[in-house]
Amino acid sequence: MNTIEVCLTHELIQQHELAGKIVVVTDVFRATSCIVAGLATGVKAIKPLIEVDDCRELQKQGWLAGGERHAQKIEGFDLDNSPFSYMSELAKGKKVAMTTTNGTLAVNKSLAADEIMAASFGNLTATANYLQKQKKDVVVLAAGWKGRPGLEDVLFGGALALATGFEIIGDSTHLAIAGYEVAKDDLLGYMQRASHLQRLKNLDITDDIAFCLEIDKFDIIIALQDGVLMKK
Amino acid sequence: MNTIEVCLTHELIQQHELAGKIVVVTDVFRATSCIVAGLATGVKAIKPLIEVDDCRELQKQGWLAGGERHAQKIEGFDLDNSPFSYMSELAKGKKVAMTTTNGTLAVNKSLAADEIMAASFGNLTATANYLQKQKKDVVVLAAGWKGRPGLEDVLFGGALALATGFEIIGDSTHLAIAGYEVAKDDLLGYMQRASHLQRLKNLDITDDIAFCLEIDKFDIIIALQDGVLMKK
Repeated sequence: MNTIEVCLTHELIQQHELAGKIVVVTDVFRATSCIVAGLATGVKAIKPLIEVDDCRELQKQGWLAGGERHAQKIEGFDLDNSPFSYMSELAKGKKVAMTTTNGTLAVNKSLAADEIMAASFGNLTATANYLQKQKKDVVVLAAGWKGRPGLEDVLFGGALALATGFEIIGDSTHLAIAGYEVAKDDLLGYMQRASHLQRLKNLDITDDIAFCLEIDKFDIIIALQDGVLMKK
Repeated sequence: MNTIEVCLTHELIQQHELAGKIVVVTDVFRATSCIVAGLATGVKAIKPLIEVDDCRELQKQGWLAGGERHAQKIEGFDLDNSPFSYMSELAKGKKVAMTTTNGTLAVNKSLAADEIMAASFGNLTATANYLQKQKKDVVVLAAGWKGRPGLEDVLFGGALALATGFEIIGDSTHLAIAGYEVAKDDLLGYMQRASHLQRLKNLDITDDIAFCLEIDKFDIIIALQDGVLMKK
């Protein structure tokens, strides 16, 4: 049976053997949720980048630039960091250069893998179905936040582990599954309760956040191909 | 209100501010369970050390030497790594030099804190009661295993966070609490199910393991004082 393990933050990725495996990167709030929503509704390709200036360079070559700083769209950028922005008419048929620190670091640290995928709750079952057809072991990399584990990312890791039915590897994976078991009946409510203090204190539970936690809105799988994320 | 946060492995300790705080180190299988059991039943002091030879040095000065390698008592040592060994007649009134890699690393990385305590399920409530009387924030350091999160240590972190009633800080703490919520009605059964594969594949669910998961057998609090762990 294939195995699946959850890595709780990219700071711990060196503890996981990646060669020969598929790495599924998730950054639920909000990079991979934007990526799933965008690529499912007409965006052609998305390149995750750390630096705003790198996005601007690609923008000069005809790409759209997407992302935020301090919860505001970046000056001169075309898209912000709402999944709805990536589903807009403006984005259809376009390639997007997206600034995301945690997601990009997670992708960059996964390059030893055979394949890198991007996933979120929006394409949970589609991703699990794809993985079930492969003969490869899987590492779910929860991108987290500044190197810290991100609860929503870890919960997705637990959800994907359960959805694949693969052999569970590692204590972190058991922890992720336990988290998902506690949260699954009301993901949004659980995240609200867990986040009403601290990191997410200022996280408005807007339509965006609710959207990022909706399961299986899209039937799409996404993989890194020649440095950009595309529908596969 | 005081705050409490769980650090999932000493590999992530740099993400937690320790100055002015109390760090509670836990290594349920088995270092801190031995320490709690021993100090509660007559051991005078325990010094956690990484190297076997450092234990032998202290043994020459009249300390007992304790610990295991490859699940066997070390040649010439007085105690193995069973909590029952630390509760034996031989150990009463003695000082013990104990070899434990994960626990010692966890203690060594916590030296910036105002106070370092050692705890396990055996003194959960006693530790929580002590913390409630202090005016300090708390970091629970789950020692883990080779830098990886250890499920039993993280569950203890969740249990202690709930027992203090302190303000919960950080996504890792929410995750630890979720894990404990899932496991608490049958800690031993949960650990058996979670561990029947992988890391704990060869972990016999012996009396030792059951003992390490028993809650509140002892009314004792333990702190590092002049480099050794003692009853406080």
